[in-house]
Amino acid sequence: MTQHEKIKASIIGVTGFTGAELLRVLLPHPHVELKYLVSRQYEAEPLSNLFPRLQGTNDLVVTNTDHETVAKDSDVVFLCLPHVASQEVAETFLGQTKLIDMSADFRLDDPAMYEKYYKTPHKKPEWLGERFVYGLPELNRKTLKSADAVANPGCNALLVQMMLLPFAGKIKQADVFLLTGTTGGGRSPRDPLDHPVLTGNVRSYLINQHRHTPEIIRTAQITEDQLNFTPTAGPFLRGIFATGFVQAESAPDFSCFDNEPFIRVCDKVELSNVVSNNFCDISVQDGVNGTYIIQGAIDNLLRGAAGTALQNMNLMFGFDEATGLTFNSAMYP
Amino acid sequence: MTQHEKIKASIIGVTGFTGAELLRVLLPHPHVELKYLVSRQYEAEPLSNLFPRLQGTNDLVVTNTDHETVAKDSDVVFLCLPHVASQEVAETFLGQTKLIDMSADFRLDDPAMYEKYYKTPHKKPEWLGERFVYGLPELNRKTLKSADAVANPGCNALLVQMMLLPFAGKIKQADVFLLTGTTGGGRSPRDPLDHPVLTGNVRSYLINQHRHTPEIIRTAQITEDQLNFTPTAGPFLRGIFATGFVQAESAPDFSCFDNEPFIRVCDKVELSNVVSNNFCDISVQDGVNGTYIIQGAIDNLLRGAAGTALQNMNLMFGFDEATGLTFNSAMYP
Amino acid sequence: MTQHEKIKASIIGVTGFTGAELLRVLLPHPHVELKYLVSRQYEAEPLSNLFPRLQGTNDLVVTNTDHETVAKDSDVVFLCLPHVASQEVAETFLGQTKLIDMSADFRLDDPAMYEKYYKTPHKKPEWLGERFVYGLPELNRKTLKSADAVANPGCNALLVQMMLLPFAGKIKQADVFLLTGTTGGGRSPRDPLDHPVLTGNVRSYLINQHRHTPEIIRTAQITEDQLNFTPTAGPFLRGIFATGFVQAESAPDFSCFDNEPFIRVCDKVELSNVVSNNFCDISVQDGVNGTYIIQGAIDNLLRGAAGTALQNMNLMFGFDEATGLTFNSAMYP
Amino acid sequence: MTQHEKIKASIIGVTGFTGAELLRVLLPHPHVELKYLVSRQYEAEPLSNLFPRLQGTNDLVVTNTDHETVAKDSDVVFLCLPHVASQEVAETFLGQTKLIDMSADFRLDDPAMYEKYYKTPHKKPEWLGERFVYGLPELNRKTLKSADAVANPGCNALLVQMMLLPFAGKIKQADVFLLTGTTGGGRSPRDPLDHPVLTGNVRSYLINQHRHTPEIIRTAQITEDQLNFTPTAGPFLRGIFATGFVQAESAPDFSCFDNEPFIRVCDKVELSNVVSNNFCDISVQDGVNGTYIIQGAIDNLLRGAAGTALQNMNLMFGFDEATGLTFNSAMYP
Repeated sequence: MTQHEKIKASIIGVTGFTGAELLRVLLPHPHVELKYLVSRQYEAEPLSNLFPRLQGTNDLVVTNTDHETVAKDSDVVFLCLPHVASQEVAETFLGQTKLIDMSADFRLDDPAMYEKYYKTPHKKPEWLGERFVYGLPELNRKTLKSADAVANPGCNALLVQMMLLPFAGKIKQADVFLLTGTTGGGRSPRDPLDHPVLTGNVRSYLINQHRHTPEIIRTAQITEDQLNFTPTAGPFLRGIFATGFVQAESAPDFSCFDNEPFIRVCDKVELSNVVSNNFCDISVQDGVNGTYIIQGAIDNLLRGAAGTALQNMNLMFGFDEATGLTFNSAMYP
Repeated sequence: MTQHEKIKASIIGVTGFTGAELLRVLLPHPHVELKYLVSRQYEAEPLSNLFPRLQGTNDLVVTNTDHETVAKDSDVVFLCLPHVASQEVAETFLGQTKLIDMSADFRLDDPAMYEKYYKTPHKKPEWLGERFVYGLPELNRKTLKSADAVANPGCNALLVQMMLLPFAGKIKQADVFLLTGTTGGGRSPRDPLDHPVLTGNVRSYLINQHRHTPEIIRTAQITEDQLNFTPTAGPFLRGIFATGFVQAESAPDFSCFDNEPFIRVCDKVELSNVVSNNFCDISVQDGVNGTYIIQGAIDNLLRGAAGTALQNMNLMFGFDEATGLTFNSAMYP
Repeated sequence: MTQHEKIKASIIGVTGFTGAELLRVLLPHPHVELKYLVSRQYEAEPLSNLFPRLQGTNDLVVTNTDHETVAKDSDVVFLCLPHVASQEVAETFLGQTKLIDMSADFRLDDPAMYEKYYKTPHKKPEWLGERFVYGLPELNRKTLKSADAVANPGCNALLVQMMLLPFAGKIKQADVFLLTGTTGGGRSPRDPLDHPVLTGNVRSYLINQHRHTPEIIRTAQITEDQLNFTPTAGPFLRGIFATGFVQAESAPDFSCFDNEPFIRVCDKVELSNVVSNNFCDISVQDGVNGTYIIQGAIDNLLRGAAGTALQNMNLMFGFDEATGLTFNSAMYP
Repeated sequence: MTQHEKIKASIIGVTGFTGAELLRVLLPHPHVELKYLVSRQYEAEPLSNLFPRLQGTNDLVVTNTDHETVAKDSDVVFLCLPHVASQEVAETFLGQTKLIDMSADFRLDDPAMYEKYYKTPHKKPEWLGERFVYGLPELNRKTLKSADAVANPGCNALLVQMMLLPFAGKIKQADVFLLTGTTGGGRSPRDPLDHPVLTGNVRSYLINQHRHTPEIIRTAQITEDQLNFTPTAGPFLRGIFATGFVQAESAPDFSCFDNEPFIRVCDKVELSNVVSNNFCDISVQDGVNGTYIIQGAIDNLLRGAAGTALQNMNLMFGFDEATGLTFNSAMYP
């Protein structure tokens, strides 16, 4: 690819939070031309009608272009569809174009685990662990460089994996409290995410049953019987802040993060330090009884979704991994 | 009614914000026994299942008791139904029991005005201006004492009426900016009230077309051509804060508020001073060019709905108007 | 005390968050007459100047009345002073009047522990564990009934004690993540509590060094080496929500909460259920590996401070413990 | 200046909100090298110690370098000092380097007006209206291109000027309600901006006395007797949302905004559309009685401060005005 050529990128399902955040990072990317922005509901709708804050910045149009055309004309396609929907449409793209799936459909290796957590049999069980590379650059960078299909990690899963990775293989038990902002719940208005219901509120959900569990335990090299996980919704827009109490056989080894462009091992994690940027901040301190207290934070929409997807795209096309991700976001979010 | 007798009060439609706030003020009322809490969706559901914060405080049950029974067994019924629904069911209660309607259905006098703002013909046009007393104690206290059917004012309408009442009959033009919290939008989750959409956001809606307009102009003794009104949603839970620029023939006369138990004419209005209590705070200062700058604030759910309804109930039954409304709410809301 | 007599209560240091919340519960208390509201800075200031939301509700005045007079004329005095200050002034009140100290000065038994956590020697080491009863009704109800001096618990400490009490004596290790609202930080404006700094932010502080630790371990019957404790500030006004991962020798025994008026053992703890009321909600579920996941929530200013202080006062004077605390606060806080 | 040369920019007073936001836009600017970041309090402090969210993004250091050195070694200096302080130090820079003053010290033409609103005589009255160009590109673009000293507008003033500019010279009266976020109050923690005090609160301040008034009336071509202005603090971080009721001799003429890169005349203004970008959104609709209802919104820290300063810098150095300002900020702020 010469310096002036751009890859053609398309997004299927551009109207949700993830699609919107992908726009944020793809629009200014120096090597990307946005080809198709697809949403079933729109025949030909100016993008700025859907996202008024983009008025005057571009003349892109959202269409319901058929998937075959999108596949044929794109160098990379981002699938921002709900779970199960990705299973149904992925085939059209595979082999035709590079594919980055933002859903949970191809993150796991084991059909039984998928069915247990997602409460439905997988429609392409033979693909699991085979057809898609799990899109965590810190873990699979080398494989990602030659991948043509990538399953982007879950947002909570990504953060907890980063927190446990320095202990991987040495964990006796991990107890993780995770607090996430309201954009983590997706863009379908519903009672628990209604402004009056959530403002000033904090509540846990799916304790020890969260769907991101299988991703976490695989990377941490533990079983479900070694993890307590209390995902919790808090009254803020963006970001995930987690605290882990880890009983491990030995101290964490942070050398796994050497030279990582988007991991910062620091003295003190504070949520606002990662809001609207692509960093994952991690701190550790010794607790009592040989327990390690590890804290971590990411922006759920960026590092937890669109930012990592862009890292993956950069790797797949041989661009510098940080391209388009070094923006300087608001100092006070 | 002797000192120890209690009136039997029922609520039809107890699950919305207004029904919930009525519970807040009715539960501790010394002269009230809650008879039926009605919601179509529940055959017999403990109230605390719907409002977990009430666990352990009472053993009330929400039922779908038929309206005839409710009417027969209650001394007063609060109708917390959507617009139009009240028109359809009110007849069952009228004459059988005292009725306080929280909807907009019986607030106006003029069927044409109703149809203009509510976009549908009224089903009982002959009742408008006849069958219900408009439930604004500051205006209709005397009539309310003998009323058997009351139409409780709109929340925004109530505040703006109080701000314009001291100028009534002398207004040349009133330009009103009104900012309301998210509980003002009701309890149906929907996109503009979604936490991620509203947090950090401010937006006006229905400029010069808001449904509360006819109530305001009637009390202010002006026409629609003398009012600019910009209702606006802001990122907070409770309360309405409004600023009016009023061009009037003479200075406001606040004597209309002498001895009013729930109006405070003060130097400076601040929203937090009225959140979770029943006061309406009003301030005025001279602007340029003979314009008066008037500010006002109320809690939309209390003074703007349940609190005023309780004042009305107290008046209708000969109780002291402030009974049950002098609670001392949080100093820092 | 006959039915119509009221006790005379005074507050020293009425302008902070705790003093303000005490006003909230004392003003409507049926057996209390507020005698002196004291603040050094005011010679004779109408209370409503300091708390404009109280305009029109009373004609109380804040004064700098000397402590001797306050002691002589009061049946009970609430000390709302910063740490150390209480040590300096308590003597004036002891023996003269009943005293409820809201500071941390008399909560501990051990001068060395006080000095370790509060970084200064205690000025009345001989009083510790002797002169004041620790004001946790669930623990010391009987002693409180005859106490004349009570040390009100720390807000975080109170919640964590309630969460660990059902395990007391059987705990191997407790790892507690606690999230508190911004009123928990007191009323002195400072950078970390500034609205722009905290909105959208989450950050832990004083991990395993928090001053409430000694209160917690004493009740839980553990040592400092058995507790990891990560207090954390979150972007909301009121309330504390905590999650504990508890390794214990046997299952929690909730019979310690039988008949407790302000403890609710429930299926699911949600912060908004306790905001602006006096309940402490607790839930437990089995985690992996014999770990118990226990969650709890309180309102930091009410159950965490003024509400418990009122329980204590009620006990000390033989009133029903719940008097003045059964108010029905906002359904949507 | 050749393509590869960069100008050297320095910031005096880098630790406040304005300094921080300047960093946001200057750090990624393709033609800027940051030379000195100055703060009296730091001898040599890594920038990322002051702004932990910048960890790992640069190795800049904050110093207390003397002003003479800064002036000598910089092509442009941004003064982010409090009012009056700029008057005292500006002389060192004038003539030595280009200067962009972010304070209010050189915005006005008239020493008497300065003294009236800022309550202190100006120390360089002879400079007012002479030495600095008022940094509003929409008004003074041509002059700014050759300016060596620029006074950056006040944030509220900038928005209201943009709203009134299409009416300039034809206004009979303008009544403006303006709502601003808490970063508008600067970074000194103080009671009215404390999180517990402001959350859920709305309050006006300095009605018809705000310091930005003289800037507004000068551009609108009116006198103080033609403007009512109610600045108001609201419970959100970023942004200003204003509504004007304008009585004018004729309809607004938006041709003044033709080809403006950062003005969007749109159907509907919504605060979140401008948060974290450099746009000023404006809408107008006809009100009653020939009154125009005009609404506008900006990000107070970007378009209201650092963004406009960057436009000015770009103009002064012959760069494209939008350079460094077309970033794509978060879709959901």
